[in-house]
Amino acid sequence: MYDCIFCKIIKGELPCSKVYETNNVLAFLDIGPVNKGHTLVVPKKHFTNIFDIEQKDLDEVSNVVRKIAPAVKKAVNADGINVMSSNGEAAGQVVMHSHIHIIPRFKDDGLKLWPQGKYEDNEMNEYKKKIEAFLNE
Amino acid sequence: MYDCIFCKIIKGELPCSKVYETNNVLAFLDIGPVNKGHTLVVPKKHFTNIFDIEQKDLDEVSNVVRKIAPAVKKAVNADGINVMSSNGEAAGQVVMHSHIHIIPRFKDDGLKLWPQGKYEDNEMNEYKKKIEAFLNE
Repeated sequence: MYDCIFCKIIKGELPCSKVYETNNVLAFLDIGPVNKGHTLVVPKKHFTNIFDIEQKDLDEVSNVVRKIAPAVKKAVNADGINVMSSNGEAAGQVVMHSHIHIIPRFKDDGLKLWPQGKYEDNEMNEYKKKIEAFLNE
Repeated sequence: MYDCIFCKIIKGELPCSKVYETNNVLAFLDIGPVNKGHTLVVPKKHFTNIFDIEQKDLDEVSNVVRKIAPAVKKAVNADGINVMSSNGEAAGQVVMHSHIHIIPRFKDDGLKLWPQGKYEDNEMNEYKKKIEAFLNE
């Protein structure tokens, strides 16, 4: 896509620190790592995010994530890995080309997951039914 | 697995608010939602996380994530979605049965992604090479 920074990286018009590549997927270091070794896995075909990516491309991306996650963990001697995607600006997506973050984690890195809330009374059942309704559309 | 809470849910020994099911994957509401509508997608076969899940099961899980994410977004009128997995205790994994979080996000929900750091000098290239070394093992 014109002016998409990841498409330019994929075409070789911008540099990246590539760690792995297949015919349809590229993996490279995030230049602003949450922890060092933070890697991005992107489909070479331009999709915006989870809402338009095709299943075969998502399968290839997930295959590469599964291959790379243990290598990232070993390379930086991490204690765990978060795998994350932000879909939509409100979810923190900045580059509008589908990408999955592989974030190495350490016992003492001080990063916290978001706090959990709770449902009142019958509210959980109401949400279940709302989601089911959109799945049966 | 004995004493695995998600295995018990899958076997019907514990209740859940199921939103979707296939032969090999179950999706249900997280009882402690980051935002209401927060859904978990789990393989029915017991795997610990990304480090032992088999590719065919991960493909089925990702297929269900891709199907459900838009339904969750519409059902709660969210502005975006984060898709996330925690792999290992240090990454925030509590239930040791592989699961992917679908978290609805709103423009004004106040949740922040983790801050980004930076690499010094040639450090990025060193990390790239370290990861590549473990991919070529």
